[in-house]
Amino acid sequence: MIRLSSADPDFAAGFDSLVSSRAEAGLDVSAPVAEILAAVRADGDEALFRLTARFDRVFLTPDTVRLSAAEIDRACATIDPALLEALDLAAHRIERFHRLQMPSDLATADEAGLSLGMRWTPLDAVGLYVPGGKAAYPSSVLMNALPARVAGVSRIAMCVPTPDGQLDPLVLAAARRAGVHEIYRVGGAQAVGALAFGTRSIPPVDRIVGPGNAYVAEAKRQVFGHVGIDSIAGPSEVVVLADGINDPDHVALDLLAQAEHDEMAQSILVTNDPAFADAVTGAVARVLPTLPRAAIADASWRDHGAVIVVPDWSAAWPLVNRLAPEHLQLMLADPEPAFAAIRHAGAIFIGRDCPEAIGDYVAGPNHVLPTSRTARFASGLSVFDFLKRTTWVRTAPGAIARVGPAAVALATAEGLQAHARSVAARLGPGRNPVTP
Amino acid sequence: MIRLSSADPDFAAGFDSLVSSRAEAGLDVSAPVAEILAAVRADGDEALFRLTARFDRVFLTPDTVRLSAAEIDRACATIDPALLEALDLAAHRIERFHRLQMPSDLATADEAGLSLGMRWTPLDAVGLYVPGGKAAYPSSVLMNALPARVAGVSRIAMCVPTPDGQLDPLVLAAARRAGVHEIYRVGGAQAVGALAFGTRSIPPVDRIVGPGNAYVAEAKRQVFGHVGIDSIAGPSEVVVLADGINDPDHVALDLLAQAEHDEMAQSILVTNDPAFADAVTGAVARVLPTLPRAAIADASWRDHGAVIVVPDWSAAWPLVNRLAPEHLQLMLADPEPAFAAIRHAGAIFIGRDCPEAIGDYVAGPNHVLPTSRTARFASGLSVFDFLKRTTWVRTAPGAIARVGPAAVALATAEGLQAHARSVAARLGPGRNPVTP
Repeated sequence: MIRLSSADPDFAAGFDSLVSSRAEAGLDVSAPVAEILAAVRADGDEALFRLTARFDRVFLTPDTVRLSAAEIDRACATIDPALLEALDLAAHRIERFHRLQMPSDLATADEAGLSLGMRWTPLDAVGLYVPGGKAAYPSSVLMNALPARVAGVSRIAMCVPTPDGQLDPLVLAAARRAGVHEIYRVGGAQAVGALAFGTRSIPPVDRIVGPGNAYVAEAKRQVFGHVGIDSIAGPSEVVVLADGINDPDHVALDLLAQAEHDEMAQSILVTNDPAFADAVTGAVARVLPTLPRAAIADASWRDHGAVIVVPDWSAAWPLVNRLAPEHLQLMLADPEPAFAAIRHAGAIFIGRDCPEAIGDYVAGPNHVLPTSRTARFASGLSVFDFLKRTTWVRTAPGAIARVGPAAVALATAEGLQAHARSVAARLGPGRNPVTP
Repeated sequence: MIRLSSADPDFAAGFDSLVSSRAEAGLDVSAPVAEILAAVRADGDEALFRLTARFDRVFLTPDTVRLSAAEIDRACATIDPALLEALDLAAHRIERFHRLQMPSDLATADEAGLSLGMRWTPLDAVGLYVPGGKAAYPSSVLMNALPARVAGVSRIAMCVPTPDGQLDPLVLAAARRAGVHEIYRVGGAQAVGALAFGTRSIPPVDRIVGPGNAYVAEAKRQVFGHVGIDSIAGPSEVVVLADGINDPDHVALDLLAQAEHDEMAQSILVTNDPAFADAVTGAVARVLPTLPRAAIADASWRDHGAVIVVPDWSAAWPLVNRLAPEHLQLMLADPEPAFAAIRHAGAIFIGRDCPEAIGDYVAGPNHVLPTSRTARFASGLSVFDFLKRTTWVRTAPGAIARVGPAAVALATAEGLQAHARSVAARLGPGRNPVTP
């Protein structure tokens, strides 16, 4: 953990190094991934099953690669009903918020006689990648699948690896609640390849979303263009802006909730109260050993955690904008100036009793958010990820008379004569093709 | 040119090969591009100027890398006023249409006591890449820069290579009309590197848009994640649905307007009238030799052009949806069934006198559109490319009582105890941290 004070003479250098500290070197897996993708593209199911046997020790056939409805039902029947209720509450709220995001079509007519518009339509088919083993988060299944459902995607194909046959029943319950019934027990780059190129067992999709390890991320990068992908998620981060009126234990838990995700996760407290900073770091030290994931949270807090003391809140806004954090908590007597001034953040949680974890599960907005400072230009997952726009232009006969000549002039200047003539042919009384 | 009839027994195979015919092998320039990017990242201006000298034979200094206002004014003064007027008409219409795209913020409150919302904010800084030499299209400057301006981006930095010092004055006029005054005479992967990482002369941006050659496309792919990028544009394509009532010369010009872009461009006519198909192919053969870009258009039409005859229009819809063309013209007595049934297309032009070229210049919607069948999942450039969303959650004290327990249950099931405790700490009368 590093402690900085924005009044210190060497603050700028310390803050710069904090901003760039997690710029990952990253494992270069591009060659093995390219090999896996080429194999799946060439040999389809045969390669997919062979690679699944090798990496997951699971031996599949065309009859077993997809989970049966009975299997899914059996798994769901093992789950505590209270947990299913919690899942349902979360799903309901996520659906409702994402329905509000649905955009409207656009249609307009202008004085030149053209009608113009823009139409939103859902994608036909989406692939949802779900990590296996311990990284399988049922909440992520809801967060990835429900926006696609709300957007109107008719086919959602889910791939989840089952190393040694293991599969979390709650992941299947989340899929069922989200209306996902096409589930394949495959993972890794080979699953991404199957979704992108299609095999006999798995028809291809148009876009692949969902988190994964370095191989999955690289595979998505390599199939990008052939299909759409979501952004490549990095380690998680939170910035908490808290004044001295807060309970230090609450703030410590909020920082540690982020830190327990991953050794590379980053938790940053910004406060205007040095004594409160001390109290929070003390609380973190006290709470840390009591966590089941203490080793992970400790490494994250030790290597990437930070406490920044500012003399006044307005000094904090530009710092937070530079960090462009995935999550931002505003635990301030008056959060409005911060909310107005901080423009780069994936999601903002406002209030002393509004921990980020509420947004991970039940608030409603998506928990798939831009990491690693990409909130400068990127957004969280939403219905927009599963919709596309088609613009349209409609003209009555003769209607392009007013705008046509300008198009002819510009096309001619660009040396594109067929463009110019295709417009010119529709102008003039006889509407004969003319060379401009 | 290939002619297919959907009634033929071997149609499926012929159409499949048409759909996949242009799946490009592509030049692999990843290694040289990685080298260029690393050099610019490490050595900044020094590398940028050295590479510009090598590739463009232009020798820059920190004082000359950016075009001066006087230079831009001088270049603009050489342009035919009628052309400037055409540019202004186009700019005005593009601005107006993109203003209509601007989305609204979202705010809602629910019975559980949470307020939720989503806020749109513009990016801070955008880089606009403009190809040099003959591929410099002033219309593309408008189409890339104006949506960014309308979205509220405060800084737009444009890079355009000037091989041997050449620069099209109309490109500068388009930049000036679009409000872009920060223009650097650099190009290639080195310009992309400068925009992504920043140099002493060129501050870094958050997102890079605009077309370029294979090196530029690969450079954008490699800096993706560090900054945002737009989609990688492939060769252009049009599908024209035309009944026999149309003027074959008009349709021929529309097909050739696409073909003259690039040897890899693709023009496809779909008609229900075999005699009209003959008339159009005859007209293409007649018009082709009269075009200044006859060699390019001829290669495109010969290698990638197609005429598909369908027995009835409903047979056409699934074919077009599979092609998911960048541009679609509907030259039909009743275009409505086609407009309703065809869901995958970048832009649709409706009417006998609504050539695609109108959309390239003056209609208003963007001409930067998804190519190579990516309209299945991607959209044209718009204000959405220059905006990002931040979601927010706001709670009054005690307000998470209704949804908090579900979050605690799910976090516990996922093994994330600090998450669970950060929520649980805000529940209950004493609001003491409790272990669930």
